[in-house]
Amino acid sequence: MRRALELARRGPEHDPNPRVGCVLLRPDEDDDGPATTIGEGWHRGAGTPHAEVAALADAAERGQDTRGATAVVTLEPCAHTGRTGACTQALLAAGVRRVVVAVEDPNPVAAGGAAVLRAAGVVVETGVLADEGRTVLGAWLPTVGRDRPFVTLKTATSLDGRVAAADGSSRWITSDVARRHAHELRAEVDAIVVGTGTALRDDPSLTARTADGSLAEHQPLRVVVGRREVPAGARLRGPGGELVALATHDPASVLDDLRARGVRRVLVEGGPTLAAAFLRAGLVDEVHAYVAPVLLGSGPAALADLGITTIADAVRLEPVSVLPLGPDVLVVATPLREA
Amino acid sequence: MRRALELARRGPEHDPNPRVGCVLLRPDEDDDGPATTIGEGWHRGAGTPHAEVAALADAAERGQDTRGATAVVTLEPCAHTGRTGACTQALLAAGVRRVVVAVEDPNPVAAGGAAVLRAAGVVVETGVLADEGRTVLGAWLPTVGRDRPFVTLKTATSLDGRVAAADGSSRWITSDVARRHAHELRAEVDAIVVGTGTALRDDPSLTARTADGSLAEHQPLRVVVGRREVPAGARLRGPGGELVALATHDPASVLDDLRARGVRRVLVEGGPTLAAAFLRAGLVDEVHAYVAPVLLGSGPAALADLGITTIADAVRLEPVSVLPLGPDVLVVATPLREA
Repeated sequence: MRRALELARRGPEHDPNPRVGCVLLRPDEDDDGPATTIGEGWHRGAGTPHAEVAALADAAERGQDTRGATAVVTLEPCAHTGRTGACTQALLAAGVRRVVVAVEDPNPVAAGGAAVLRAAGVVVETGVLADEGRTVLGAWLPTVGRDRPFVTLKTATSLDGRVAAADGSSRWITSDVARRHAHELRAEVDAIVVGTGTALRDDPSLTARTADGSLAEHQPLRVVVGRREVPAGARLRGPGGELVALATHDPASVLDDLRARGVRRVLVEGGPTLAAAFLRAGLVDEVHAYVAPVLLGSGPAALADLGITTIADAVRLEPVSVLPLGPDVLVVATPLREA
Repeated sequence: MRRALELARRGPEHDPNPRVGCVLLRPDEDDDGPATTIGEGWHRGAGTPHAEVAALADAAERGQDTRGATAVVTLEPCAHTGRTGACTQALLAAGVRRVVVAVEDPNPVAAGGAAVLRAAGVVVETGVLADEGRTVLGAWLPTVGRDRPFVTLKTATSLDGRVAAADGSSRWITSDVARRHAHELRAEVDAIVVGTGTALRDDPSLTARTADGSLAEHQPLRVVVGRREVPAGARLRGPGGELVALATHDPASVLDDLRARGVRRVLVEGGPTLAAAFLRAGLVDEVHAYVAPVLLGSGPAALADLGITTIADAVRLEPVSVLPLGPDVLVVATPLREA
């Protein structure tokens, strides 16, 4: 499985499909000695063969017989026919007798592979190095089975909920440590979304930077939502991810557009109007609230009106983690949906 | 020292003076065998003898000779003459030759006892069970050497900095766990202060309650600041601490008044105007910010205008602790003063 996870990591991190690795082993005569690898494969990105199929092709190329073989695979083989055919069928056709899986597929469309294999008499073992398997799957996991990108709303406020002082100045409310953390999150997502108000007022770069301040290898799309134009000299037009201007105020149509561009994970960074629009539309999956030990007493709040008038209607969140970051605190929480 | 700490705990928790215990030991011939207790004492509250003097009196009553004795005391003996005479002089007069101390006295007026004793040839050892010693001193420690009570500002807000929804409803933003914690803090302070606005709008009890909802043994003064009258039927006039109405808006004069009443620790609970007035006056020593994973988008903020217009002038705090309380987080932080 460690080798399969290594192979999985060779796949593209920012892809609509998960990173998966597969190793095919020749069964031992006595079932106890060291197994021999007869094929290896990993998924190279949407539209290319799944890891299992790639490993079977590798075995065929090596002239190896796969009948009776064991497939060690980091994600449960899919049971649905997408662009590439169901992996379970390919494994069965190749005569594989045992399948060892790290992570069960949480995707309701693709899941059920283990059951299909078991029904055909294959021995299936799941949960082997599952934690490492989930780490390799990374940002793909929370996006599974959704018909839209996974949306994280980020706020960075003073202890009294201000995102800037009265004159609009906000550099910096949070600490170096918190801002570095936020840049790591940017490097994980496929798109950062802001409203035109923020784009015009703050002239942000919306780049993902490493600890030394240089551009990270992966740069998310920079998406500006609203009807106003991003000026020619704006930092958003400088080095960084592709600039996408969407002349709408509807969060659902923003996500539709981004999904069509292959975006799986979106980070909404503000301002207050856009953040409130996503919340009102029920299109926030996770809130990352950086809270700094600073008091301002005035200045814009993190959120515009949500249409909430009484405490019983508050948007309640379930905290996922509370992480001190230098002097600041990051609260990660997910909105609780009505039953 | 454990016995001395036990004695110290017998003292009154809510008193202008610290809780101190003292044990006098007869020195052994060979310095190795078990020591014999020849006197014990503790401080019973302001105006009564200090622990050392009480222990010497106990020894005299038992007919014990204190010459050459060891005094084990939970707080460094004082070197100043207050209502009760300097303890260092009493120990020297009694012929004590060795003094073992848990916590050094941080009070600049009373400190220096160890130096006085050493200059007189007494062997002084400090820092023995200092952590336990500090625990017993409790709320007294941060109030030491100040000419005014120690002020804690408490806020309880949503993640976006609101203390209530748009209609003023605020029961409850924070969880049971956080509210229980806040009641423990109330039981530790001598006075809770709110503005008349909060008193009239929320009709709070401002009592300290135990986990089962009953009144805690110690009830802080309930102080209402402002010119409006607390109505006859208000909860503030119900069971709980004494109600003190102060017809002023000046935080300094509030603290003067409370100090004259023997108050050492004050909890300012709001509203936003009173909280801002204390901050603007530089009269907040510590902020307790309870932050709940709730979003409101509108409603009153925790703080009224602080006169801050740009980020460089923000009130910056140094975090002391970050404590998850159920779903909420308590950030304790102290304002950083200008150099």
